[in-house]
Amino acid sequence: MKGTPLSSPSAAAAARITALDTYDIRFPTSRELDGSDAMNPDPDYSAAYLVLRTDAGDGLEGHGFTFTIGRGNDVQVAAIEALRPYLVGRSVAEVCADPGSVYRDLNGDSQLRWLGPEKGVMHMAVGAVVNAVWDLAAKRAGLPLWRFLAEAEPEWLVSQVDFRYIADALTPEQALGLLQRGRDGAARRTAELTATGYPAYTTSPGWLGYSDEKLVRLATKALDDGFRQIKLKVGADLADDVRRCRTARATIGPDVRMAIDANQRWNVDEAVAWTNALAEFDPYWIEEPTSPDDVLGHAAIRARVAPIRVATGEHVQNRVVFKQLLQAGAIDVLQLDSTRVGGVNENLAILLLAAAFGIPVCPHAGGVGLCELVRHLSMFDYVALSGSTEGRAIEFADHLHEHFVDPAVIRDGHYVAPTLPGFSAALRPEAIDTFRYPDGVFWAEDLAQGQIETAEVPA
Amino acid sequence: MKGTPLSSPSAAAAARITALDTYDIRFPTSRELDGSDAMNPDPDYSAAYLVLRTDAGDGLEGHGFTFTIGRGNDVQVAAIEALRPYLVGRSVAEVCADPGSVYRDLNGDSQLRWLGPEKGVMHMAVGAVVNAVWDLAAKRAGLPLWRFLAEAEPEWLVSQVDFRYIADALTPEQALGLLQRGRDGAARRTAELTATGYPAYTTSPGWLGYSDEKLVRLATKALDDGFRQIKLKVGADLADDVRRCRTARATIGPDVRMAIDANQRWNVDEAVAWTNALAEFDPYWIEEPTSPDDVLGHAAIRARVAPIRVATGEHVQNRVVFKQLLQAGAIDVLQLDSTRVGGVNENLAILLLAAAFGIPVCPHAGGVGLCELVRHLSMFDYVALSGSTEGRAIEFADHLHEHFVDPAVIRDGHYVAPTLPGFSAALRPEAIDTFRYPDGVFWAEDLAQGQIETAEVPA
Repeated sequence: MKGTPLSSPSAAAAARITALDTYDIRFPTSRELDGSDAMNPDPDYSAAYLVLRTDAGDGLEGHGFTFTIGRGNDVQVAAIEALRPYLVGRSVAEVCADPGSVYRDLNGDSQLRWLGPEKGVMHMAVGAVVNAVWDLAAKRAGLPLWRFLAEAEPEWLVSQVDFRYIADALTPEQALGLLQRGRDGAARRTAELTATGYPAYTTSPGWLGYSDEKLVRLATKALDDGFRQIKLKVGADLADDVRRCRTARATIGPDVRMAIDANQRWNVDEAVAWTNALAEFDPYWIEEPTSPDDVLGHAAIRARVAPIRVATGEHVQNRVVFKQLLQAGAIDVLQLDSTRVGGVNENLAILLLAAAFGIPVCPHAGGVGLCELVRHLSMFDYVALSGSTEGRAIEFADHLHEHFVDPAVIRDGHYVAPTLPGFSAALRPEAIDTFRYPDGVFWAEDLAQGQIETAEVPA
Repeated sequence: MKGTPLSSPSAAAAARITALDTYDIRFPTSRELDGSDAMNPDPDYSAAYLVLRTDAGDGLEGHGFTFTIGRGNDVQVAAIEALRPYLVGRSVAEVCADPGSVYRDLNGDSQLRWLGPEKGVMHMAVGAVVNAVWDLAAKRAGLPLWRFLAEAEPEWLVSQVDFRYIADALTPEQALGLLQRGRDGAARRTAELTATGYPAYTTSPGWLGYSDEKLVRLATKALDDGFRQIKLKVGADLADDVRRCRTARATIGPDVRMAIDANQRWNVDEAVAWTNALAEFDPYWIEEPTSPDDVLGHAAIRARVAPIRVATGEHVQNRVVFKQLLQAGAIDVLQLDSTRVGGVNENLAILLLAAAFGIPVCPHAGGVGLCELVRHLSMFDYVALSGSTEGRAIEFADHLHEHFVDPAVIRDGHYVAPTLPGFSAALRPEAIDTFRYPDGVFWAEDLAQGQIETAEVPA
């Protein structure tokens, strides 16, 4: 290729990924107690963020990130940086034609695999990079990711899934059958989504750090905004939870759904006792009652709190654990997350598993950019796989959307279908300039003040 | 404390941790195919290594590490560095009196927890730091860790365990009962260990990259060295595995145990078919037949390959997954690892769970320093908990021991009981100087040569 001018058609075909740039982005959310729950009292919502750049000359970039809640975001950035050599130099056309090749190469690298395997920091880094590839691929196709996926050939989608460790529950042939079935009525569902959007529920009223007055005010606002489900954080103090659930139920009435979320606070017996103590307030589901690793624990809890549904997923590490949650009959609601697992490819596997077992997917969102990303996955699910929004809704929390180029928009309790090409992962440049840690405008000022305060503490 | 001279008794009591220094250590093992298996063809055995330093003036340090296999060791180091602020400044006496306080603080930190929870890079970093605290505590007590643990009060040991997420399988009261029972005959067992050591088995003959001639030679040597069990890597090619198992069995005869290890290569059905295809060679166990995350998969495999035992653990992320492997009847042999989980505290929980379910523990070792560490855990298990070596042996691979201050020593197929105070984690200073990446003597030379070679590749 030496000497080929970049402006020629063959140069466009030969375009390479030239850079994987990383950014440690942190928003000071802990100062308002936004996002406080029984396990996470003081999160600073953060993103370990990356941009793939190319020499294609078309102005397109691939953006991706891992959501974290503050300290350790630098470790997550280091893990993403460790993946740079696997991306830089690769053909843009090839990786966009087959994002699964990147996913398989990164997950299959034996040395990186040792650091998981397929879990934790290194796996989330893989997911961030894989999602950036999908963002770039959808942009090159000129489609929002949900349509890019929904309009793809079923055979190609199946080729994007790693069936290792899940083939005992879902074979490639079964996956293909589910996707072929999903083609019936797909055009109608795409039009529906474009017209009315996808149902949302809101967690905004229910953070533990909020006063009862704020809970009532925000729950009332949620109804006014058209939401038909809210969620309350529970698990720190039972008497408080009884009072807050009673208050919330009195505010929203009997017909609006009220989910509760313990954020992994309990052992099995505690989960059963605490959940049943709140049963009189008709919770729609109990979310993360215990460790996300405890498949058998969730199954035991589910048997003992029925008819209250059991939901989990935002911390479930990969498709192998989701497979078992489904096999064991441990959950009623599957809450995938857009940045916890190995990117779109692994979330395709998880959506297919959920469809195979007939379990509704209600994704985790909130944080930084999770609402922006995950709406694409649910909309693909509706158009091309589940064909239904019955018992389904995407979480919504009204934080930090203003920092995104293509922010999540809610209308009458529904996520509006995104229309811009890509996966909506891009932060606005001014957000990066302000909240890059530790040298963005906000943090530089804040840390300078902190240093003054620290210096004033007597030795 | 201001102005208190460091040499006074009160200063000794007031000693603080003053530094957490990290080192990226990599050994070029891939050049000899040591450690090659079906999933890990080219490992460079590595350690993300740390030293806790204090101002106690007694010359004692706490050493700890995470074992990795090369690339990404820098990410693991970054994760350990993220824990520095939690250690530096703490009272040496307090953390050594209660290493569980460090374990709980690190695991309980909500922002770091988000990066797992309790799994992967961040969890292994916690384990490395916690193990360094135990190393320091045992050194201050003047005892090798196995004796430090075995001589501790049962109530105190129970206080070192986090029962969150395992209390449905093991309560603190049950744990106390197991430890109290273990006191009977403890002095006799300590004397036995000191005299004859703890049974070992060897993986040295069985790496996939070795020729059949080397397999025969090393298996013969294993018998000469007194080992009564060897292990072969399998899973890359069935015809090769049949030939290698036949060769090994012919070499060692019918009475020596031959375990086989697939390093997570298979799906459930593949694992069953492949293992049963090797049944004629009487494998003692099949190790890591599938994903370490797949509790239900292991249970299914075990039911279909009996009477061949199922073993796993070196990649099992934490006590919650071990709990389920035991609850589901998924394993016959539990293979804990000294640096995969949250340090000695979590391994105490795992040993207690194994004892409660009556499943023998045969730890994973090899790599860098895993033999050095894990012998302490098995010897504690024998003296104070299981009271038996029946069906138990610690893995041994004869690599890299020369780099340790207190290396593992094998005599007549047994690990000799260590006598130096501490957890035996310390690398020799010259090993650090040579193999620190990228600036140690070996790597600086190697990378300089590599740069020359790279420069010679045509653009």
